[in-house]
Amino acid sequence: MIKAGIIGATGYAGEQLTWLLYKHPEVNVEFYSSHNYADIKYNEIYNNYNGFIEDICVSLEVAISKLSNINVLFIALPSGKAFEITEKALALGVKVIDLGADFRLKSKEVYEEWYKVKHESEKLLGNAVYGLTELNRKAIKQCNLLANPGCYPTATILALTPLLKNNLIDINSIIVDAKSGVSGAGRAASIGSLFTECNESIKAYAVASHRHTPEIEQELSMAASENVMITFTPHLVPMNRGILSTCYGALKKDLTTEDLIDLYRDFYKDDYFIKILNGLPETRWVRGSNLCHIGIKVDKRTNKVIIISAIDNLIKGAAGQAVQNMNIMFGLKETTGLEIIAMAP
Amino acid sequence: MIKAGIIGATGYAGEQLTWLLYKHPEVNVEFYSSHNYADIKYNEIYNNYNGFIEDICVSLEVAISKLSNINVLFIALPSGKAFEITEKALALGVKVIDLGADFRLKSKEVYEEWYKVKHESEKLLGNAVYGLTELNRKAIKQCNLLANPGCYPTATILALTPLLKNNLIDINSIIVDAKSGVSGAGRAASIGSLFTECNESIKAYAVASHRHTPEIEQELSMAASENVMITFTPHLVPMNRGILSTCYGALKKDLTTEDLIDLYRDFYKDDYFIKILNGLPETRWVRGSNLCHIGIKVDKRTNKVIIISAIDNLIKGAAGQAVQNMNIMFGLKETTGLEIIAMAP
Amino acid sequence: MIKAGIIGATGYAGEQLTWLLYKHPEVNVEFYSSHNYADIKYNEIYNNYNGFIEDICVSLEVAISKLSNINVLFIALPSGKAFEITEKALALGVKVIDLGADFRLKSKEVYEEWYKVKHESEKLLGNAVYGLTELNRKAIKQCNLLANPGCYPTATILALTPLLKNNLIDINSIIVDAKSGVSGAGRAASIGSLFTECNESIKAYAVASHRHTPEIEQELSMAASENVMITFTPHLVPMNRGILSTCYGALKKDLTTEDLIDLYRDFYKDDYFIKILNGLPETRWVRGSNLCHIGIKVDKRTNKVIIISAIDNLIKGAAGQAVQNMNIMFGLKETTGLEIIAMAP
Amino acid sequence: MIKAGIIGATGYAGEQLTWLLYKHPEVNVEFYSSHNYADIKYNEIYNNYNGFIEDICVSLEVAISKLSNINVLFIALPSGKAFEITEKALALGVKVIDLGADFRLKSKEVYEEWYKVKHESEKLLGNAVYGLTELNRKAIKQCNLLANPGCYPTATILALTPLLKNNLIDINSIIVDAKSGVSGAGRAASIGSLFTECNESIKAYAVASHRHTPEIEQELSMAASENVMITFTPHLVPMNRGILSTCYGALKKDLTTEDLIDLYRDFYKDDYFIKILNGLPETRWVRGSNLCHIGIKVDKRTNKVIIISAIDNLIKGAAGQAVQNMNIMFGLKETTGLEIIAMAP
Repeated sequence: MIKAGIIGATGYAGEQLTWLLYKHPEVNVEFYSSHNYADIKYNEIYNNYNGFIEDICVSLEVAISKLSNINVLFIALPSGKAFEITEKALALGVKVIDLGADFRLKSKEVYEEWYKVKHESEKLLGNAVYGLTELNRKAIKQCNLLANPGCYPTATILALTPLLKNNLIDINSIIVDAKSGVSGAGRAASIGSLFTECNESIKAYAVASHRHTPEIEQELSMAASENVMITFTPHLVPMNRGILSTCYGALKKDLTTEDLIDLYRDFYKDDYFIKILNGLPETRWVRGSNLCHIGIKVDKRTNKVIIISAIDNLIKGAAGQAVQNMNIMFGLKETTGLEIIAMAP
Repeated sequence: MIKAGIIGATGYAGEQLTWLLYKHPEVNVEFYSSHNYADIKYNEIYNNYNGFIEDICVSLEVAISKLSNINVLFIALPSGKAFEITEKALALGVKVIDLGADFRLKSKEVYEEWYKVKHESEKLLGNAVYGLTELNRKAIKQCNLLANPGCYPTATILALTPLLKNNLIDINSIIVDAKSGVSGAGRAASIGSLFTECNESIKAYAVASHRHTPEIEQELSMAASENVMITFTPHLVPMNRGILSTCYGALKKDLTTEDLIDLYRDFYKDDYFIKILNGLPETRWVRGSNLCHIGIKVDKRTNKVIIISAIDNLIKGAAGQAVQNMNIMFGLKETTGLEIIAMAP
Repeated sequence: MIKAGIIGATGYAGEQLTWLLYKHPEVNVEFYSSHNYADIKYNEIYNNYNGFIEDICVSLEVAISKLSNINVLFIALPSGKAFEITEKALALGVKVIDLGADFRLKSKEVYEEWYKVKHESEKLLGNAVYGLTELNRKAIKQCNLLANPGCYPTATILALTPLLKNNLIDINSIIVDAKSGVSGAGRAASIGSLFTECNESIKAYAVASHRHTPEIEQELSMAASENVMITFTPHLVPMNRGILSTCYGALKKDLTTEDLIDLYRDFYKDDYFIKILNGLPETRWVRGSNLCHIGIKVDKRTNKVIIISAIDNLIKGAAGQAVQNMNIMFGLKETTGLEIIAMAP
Repeated sequence: MIKAGIIGATGYAGEQLTWLLYKHPEVNVEFYSSHNYADIKYNEIYNNYNGFIEDICVSLEVAISKLSNINVLFIALPSGKAFEITEKALALGVKVIDLGADFRLKSKEVYEEWYKVKHESEKLLGNAVYGLTELNRKAIKQCNLLANPGCYPTATILALTPLLKNNLIDINSIIVDAKSGVSGAGRAASIGSLFTECNESIKAYAVASHRHTPEIEQELSMAASENVMITFTPHLVPMNRGILSTCYGALKKDLTTEDLIDLYRDFYKDDYFIKILNGLPETRWVRGSNLCHIGIKVDKRTNKVIIISAIDNLIKGAAGQAVQNMNIMFGLKETTGLEIIAMAP
């Protein structure tokens, strides 16, 4: 059994990890650490675990004292908070999977510009592997420090990489119009996330300035083998979960929808979690699963291509992909503990 | 492996069965039958199964022709539609689990009065076992025809039985104020179930006339060993899933909340799926699970007791309990395939 | 023109007052006071007023300095906060309409027991008039200090008063099972009110202990001319607005649904805002209006009566009734500024 | 008083007209016509009118017989259904405001290609005036046949026209990613519009094939004085009302966000209903109003401009704009009956 610890276990990504790991046949969680709920029973915060998880949340200090007992540490903290604990864990030989942004960007400068936080572990940036599993399995298998992708980046990079790898779109034409459920804002008490403020409304936010932009660009640039910049517009949708990323590009060749469906099916042919649809995705069909549904449409009138991807932001966009990466890092079957189908309705 | 067939597989209860049985380690589904979607691929109706279930729905006629291949038949049809297929299946030695109302009431007359449908299989009523699992395991184990309880009855009977078995409340005082998500109305195209008609509103419906009333009274009367009548008010709540049943009774003794929590914990001490809370239930904590959460409060000022139970109407209130009953009928561990914890948020 | 001031103008009840008074033909708002948003433009908090209300919120201190300029002060503060400002305003001859609880209960002791706050203006309790408009117009017309009812009390007292005035139900049998939208919890940043915590769930809360209980009992006792105690269970429903109060009582006479509809229609025959339905109410049909819809059903089997009332918690349950009372206090037509019909869908 | 008739009065657009006209000081509605609800009381379908509108819906035949009594006819029917009634009304000197698509496109061929319906009143196309009020007041003032714009076109054309009139963006670069509430799908009983199918999900639909595309292109081409084609992707959002249209274009000049805000403010300086924001729009702030909120952002990194507009799809996107146009056609003040501010929350 793999022994795991979770830092930030009571936020939504942390809770989602708890949910997945509780059912994972090869993992035992040794501790649940929480800043706000230390010394409180986990199932008092999340009553779904009533009768199942009887652990009491521990403080970060207690968590640190237990690092030597575990094999893998999951970190689900706000940006700028993972440096010290990561260094401590790695020093003890514990593999680290960070669900936050602290090790995703290769460039310290880019990180500091977008996150407005000093990067305190620059030396680790070279070791960190960006864990978009389908695109990076080999490096993931060998890494000790895994930077788990953001939710918008996961949906968007999966949607656009086949086009860019095959040089099919004008790289100056890319627009990403993404929509997220409210859990993307986390479990912090803020007026903007109140039911009454989010319900019955949609809005764009952080237009042309969202922190996930450089992460998407970094990975798309690698796929394209040249520098890619995108226009990225996130929106907040009145639902708990889900990301729909509607991606646009100007085609450089004369291709049909069917051509691209074939190309995508081939590109992802060995990827259990990626489904290329004949039609269009809806977030409900992937909710609660680690799947990514992708729909493709060529607009012949304008010669633009529209790629639409749907994921569950907390699963494939956070905790599920983290477990998928853990499975690879520990030599397990990639799908272990993740063979979940969305529940309807 | 148990071979199963599902009649009515594309309604919400049927789909939920599909979802549970797909993951069940001891069951293979041999056919999915659907009146409206015969000859259509199951995953075109429910895209969550894209890449997983490749079956094509069959008509009732085709389903009947396959009865001899299966061990158990699940029926999820509107009331009055299960008689013929049940008789055919039983005649072939197939065990039948009916998720509808056709075999729940012991009395043909009561059935016909409340359902306004002629009962065509009166002779089977004596064989049918009412499958509220926790209260009836012995009979379930031996039965061939299982009448799976309704959603409101499941929540309500579990909430009130310990009080009635122990003669603690005035049986003329019982009021059940229940609240259901919209999936309880099924997957029929009706204006009343449109998003725009249900969203941002709550209403009571079928006040003092809902068809689940005699089913609840039948089982509560058995618990009380005398004739019980209730006032039952169902409400429609703008959410997909969940039932919360708020039950009121006038206490006959001077008891505290703590006394009753102890009594309920003892009553349900061997029941994996029943959790007696210290606090109050919320439907989200049981959503997607086969659990029933029960909260208890004595109002000392009025000497009334309030018992509040929460279930997922499609799982413990329909498909989950059907699988739980199947497990017992086939000698499997009761929880097989049902060890699901609600996903938050 | 009546000159008005609003204390607590940026909470939901205060904002709703702003909305109503902005359109009111006989009122000018002289200041909007806000603790959290002093010195911020009102329309930056509530963008619906962009281009309409250009005022900047003022602090309580500034508000106090402007009391001598106004004719009426609306107070929408948490309990225990209205005492001082009320005394100051009354001393200057300003009429006060308090939307909070500080002057609703006749008994200082009862107030302190339920609200856990010391009552600092006991001497004013005798002057305060409880403003359930339809039941109290004469006193309202003459008062200087109006205690505007709570949302649950408004819906519940309107539903039950005709029964109690006519001595039709057993006063020991009353159960009130009420359901509220999330705006009832106010605009405070709390985790329990997050979209992700409220959406897709229903729960009961404050069972047998909600602070609106003594207010309801006080008024029902007056209607019954004897001491009434109720069992009151509020629930939180995933919608922004609306209260549905489902009230139960044991009939003392043999009455039909039709008898009671007639009785209610007669009781409220002069009340523009009260509509006695042939069918059942839904909160959406009164949303945004000052109306109260009431549906009635006798359960002949159990001889219980079920009265269901629906209001908009922020309008008839707060700001709308406050304006209705102001209209009466200032000799205007009662419906001025309140002739609003719910918008569908 | 203007005498009006409504054809299609029980659909959502028709109901919204009813709501607005009931409050309009210069209009009396002479009849409410409904195909599905003829001979049924209007307030039994929409209970919000209980006690207010006591009319019984009439059939189309009855409506036709009353045409000579009215001054203006509002038609809110599915596409292809307005031809005959329009001709009859115009022949009697009744002004017609059609909320459907039958007279919006100048070209019969384009209409028939996108709507798959034969156009039966080609001769009227020359008379019809496209009623995007802010852009076309002069023609509206003189017309007898007004083609009221679609919801997506209203939001999108208002967002993009100032850019195109000023030749600021590459006309081959325009992408419109729009999001609508479910009321856009109308009040038809369809499974796709059920609460349980729409709630907790977002999807794109009719990608690169939505019928509003040619209408948007027709008007943008007029603004640009050259042929404009757009890529248009509508999405369905789990809310009752609202459209957010996120529009992208590649800037041809070096302009800042502030430059464009100034330009838009100047462009719409005489338009009561258009508000150019400093920040970003949210549909909730215009819900229930005839307003259009527009937010602007230049992405300096990619030199794209993002214009985001928010309207209420049933008001500025349908019935409100129809009333706005009627006001102009009848010489009333443009804002009469439309001075509504969104209700929060």
